[in-house]
Amino acid sequence: MGSRMAVAPAMKIVGNRLFSTAAISRPAVSGFNNHAIRYGSAGPVFGPRFMGTAAVSAEDDGDEAKLAGGKKEDKAVMSYWGVEHKKVMKEDGSQWKWACFRPWDTYSSDLSIDLGKHHLPVTWMDKLAHWTVKTLRWPTDIFFQRRYGCRAMMLETVAAVPGMVGGMLLHLSSLRRFEHSGGWIRSLLEEAENERMHLMTFMEVSQPRWYERALVIAVQGVFFNAYFLGYLISPKFAHRVVGYLEEEAIHSYTEFLKEIDKGNIDNVPAPAIAIDYWRLQPGATLRDVVMVVRADEAHHRDVNHYASDIHVHGLKLKELPAPVGYH
Amino acid sequence: MGSRMAVAPAMKIVGNRLFSTAAISRPAVSGFNNHAIRYGSAGPVFGPRFMGTAAVSAEDDGDEAKLAGGKKEDKAVMSYWGVEHKKVMKEDGSQWKWACFRPWDTYSSDLSIDLGKHHLPVTWMDKLAHWTVKTLRWPTDIFFQRRYGCRAMMLETVAAVPGMVGGMLLHLSSLRRFEHSGGWIRSLLEEAENERMHLMTFMEVSQPRWYERALVIAVQGVFFNAYFLGYLISPKFAHRVVGYLEEEAIHSYTEFLKEIDKGNIDNVPAPAIAIDYWRLQPGATLRDVVMVVRADEAHHRDVNHYASDIHVHGLKLKELPAPVGYH
Repeated sequence: MGSRMAVAPAMKIVGNRLFSTAAISRPAVSGFNNHAIRYGSAGPVFGPRFMGTAAVSAEDDGDEAKLAGGKKEDKAVMSYWGVEHKKVMKEDGSQWKWACFRPWDTYSSDLSIDLGKHHLPVTWMDKLAHWTVKTLRWPTDIFFQRRYGCRAMMLETVAAVPGMVGGMLLHLSSLRRFEHSGGWIRSLLEEAENERMHLMTFMEVSQPRWYERALVIAVQGVFFNAYFLGYLISPKFAHRVVGYLEEEAIHSYTEFLKEIDKGNIDNVPAPAIAIDYWRLQPGATLRDVVMVVRADEAHHRDVNHYASDIHVHGLKLKELPAPVGYH
Repeated sequence: MGSRMAVAPAMKIVGNRLFSTAAISRPAVSGFNNHAIRYGSAGPVFGPRFMGTAAVSAEDDGDEAKLAGGKKEDKAVMSYWGVEHKKVMKEDGSQWKWACFRPWDTYSSDLSIDLGKHHLPVTWMDKLAHWTVKTLRWPTDIFFQRRYGCRAMMLETVAAVPGMVGGMLLHLSSLRRFEHSGGWIRSLLEEAENERMHLMTFMEVSQPRWYERALVIAVQGVFFNAYFLGYLISPKFAHRVVGYLEEEAIHSYTEFLKEIDKGNIDNVPAPAIAIDYWRLQPGATLRDVVMVVRADEAHHRDVNHYASDIHVHGLKLKELPAPVGYH
C-alpha cells in the first residue's frame, strides 16, 4: 500500500504535464502543433548540422535527386522529411535527452507486488521448465560469483529476447489467421522493451569486457533460436520457462540488494537514465534502481506464468485479454 | 492546415479524459488504483466464469498446486494472478470493448501530410528497390483487379511484416552491442502494430476466402524470410523498398477512394473498431477510414525513406533520433 500512496499523487502531477506528450505520440503534425503550443517551439531535433538547411528546404522542396550524395544531402533529408520537428521537453521544462525512450514511456514502478510468489511445478512440463531454469542457474552462478552488477547487465541481454520473439510470432500469427491479438502482442513487446531498458540502465553501472561481449553474442545466437523454436513448438512451455527465469531474476536482485546493504557493492547514485525512466527521486541510488527493476521482473513473472496458465486451460492467449500496464 | 485545426481541439478534449487510462498503461497496481478512483471499480476483466472464484481466491491464495487441471483451474488463475483487474473504460464512460488496442493507443490521423511526395531513385540501389516494387505491382493488379477492399485487407497482412522484422533486428542488435536504439526499435514496432490495425479494420469490410487465406500464408512465409535476410544484408535497401511499397499503397488507396466516389464500391459505415482507433466521428464511413489509412501509409513512407537516407549518409539509425508520433 505504501508505494500506492506514494505513487498516486506523483501520477497526477506528472500526468497532466505528460498528457500533451502522451498525445503527440499518436497524431503526427497535429501532435507536433499541440506539443508546440504546450511547450513552445524548440527547433529541429536533428541539431545544428541540419538546422541551416531547414529554411532552404521550404523554398526548394522535394528535390530528392540530390539525395544520393554531395553537399546537399542534409538539405535533402530535411526537404524529404517534410515535418518540422520539435524537441521533446521534460515536465520540468528542460529538454528531454533520451531518444531510446520518451516521457510517455516512463512510469512509476509498483513495489507492492508479491516478490515471493512461486508457481509450483505440477505437470511434467512445469517440472521440465523448472528443472531447465535451475540447471541454467549453476553455470551462471559459477561465472558471475557475486558480481551482481555485471550479472544483471549480462542477463538482461538474454531477458529481453523472449518478449520480442513471442510478440513477433503472435503478430505474424494474427496476420496469417486474420485474428485479433487480445493485446498480447503489445504486452510481450512491452516486456522486451522494458528488459532492454534494464540493460541500458545497468550499462551505466558496469561496462562489459571484450570476452563478455563475445559471450553475449554467442548466447543470443543460441537462445534466440532456441526460444524461437520452443515458442513455435509449445508457447505453454516457453512462457513457463520465462516465468521461472523471472523468479530466479527476482532472487538474484534480492542477493544484489543484500550485497549493497552489506557494503560489498557501492550504493552509487542512480544513473540519470534510470531516474527518468522510473521517475525516481533526484537523489536516488543504485539500491532504488535494483528495487524497481526487481518489481518489473515480478510483473513479467506473473504475465508469463499467466500466459502459460491460459494454455494449460486449453485456451488461446487472444481469448483472454492481456494484462494492462504489466510491462 | 485544415486537419490540424480540426484535430487540435479534439486532442485536448479526449486527452484530459484519456490521461488516467494513459497513465495506467505504465504503473501496475498504482495504475489500477488510479484507474479505479477515476472510473470506479468495474470487476474482473475475465468475465463471469472467473468472477465467482475471485472472492475464494482471496482466502485461499497461491495454491498453484491445483493449477494443472480440474475444477479449481479458474480459481488458480485468479489466485495466481494476484492483481485485481479493472475494466478499461471509454472516455464516454462505456466499457472499452477492444483488447487488441487500448484507449491510449488511439490517435487522430494527420490528413495534411503530402501524399504526392515521391523519392526519386538515384543510386542503382534506389533504382533496384523502385524496380522491385513496380514489378511486384503487376501480379497484384492482375490478381485483385478493382476489388480494393479485398486488396487492402490482403496487402496489410504483408505491410505489417517489415516493421516487426526491422524492430526485432534492431532490438537484438541493441542488446548484442550494448547500444541505445535512438527510438527506432519502438518506431518500427509501432509501424507494424499500426499496419496490423489496418488489417483488423479491413477484415470488418471484406472477408478472406479460403484460397486467399492460403495465399497469405504462402506470401508471409516467403516475404518474412526475404525481408529478414534483406534487412540483415542491407537495411538501406530494405527501408527504401518499404518506402516505395508505401508510395504504391498511397496510390492504391487513392484508387480505392475514386471507386467509392464513383459508387462502384459502397461507402458503408466505418467499422466500430476504426471509429475507436482513429477517433472518427460516429457517422464516419468507409471513405473516412480509407482517408486515415492512406495518411498512415504516407507517414510510413516518410519514416522508411528517411531511415534509408540515414544509411545513405553513412550513419547508423541510432545516431539520429527516430521521428516522434510517426506510426
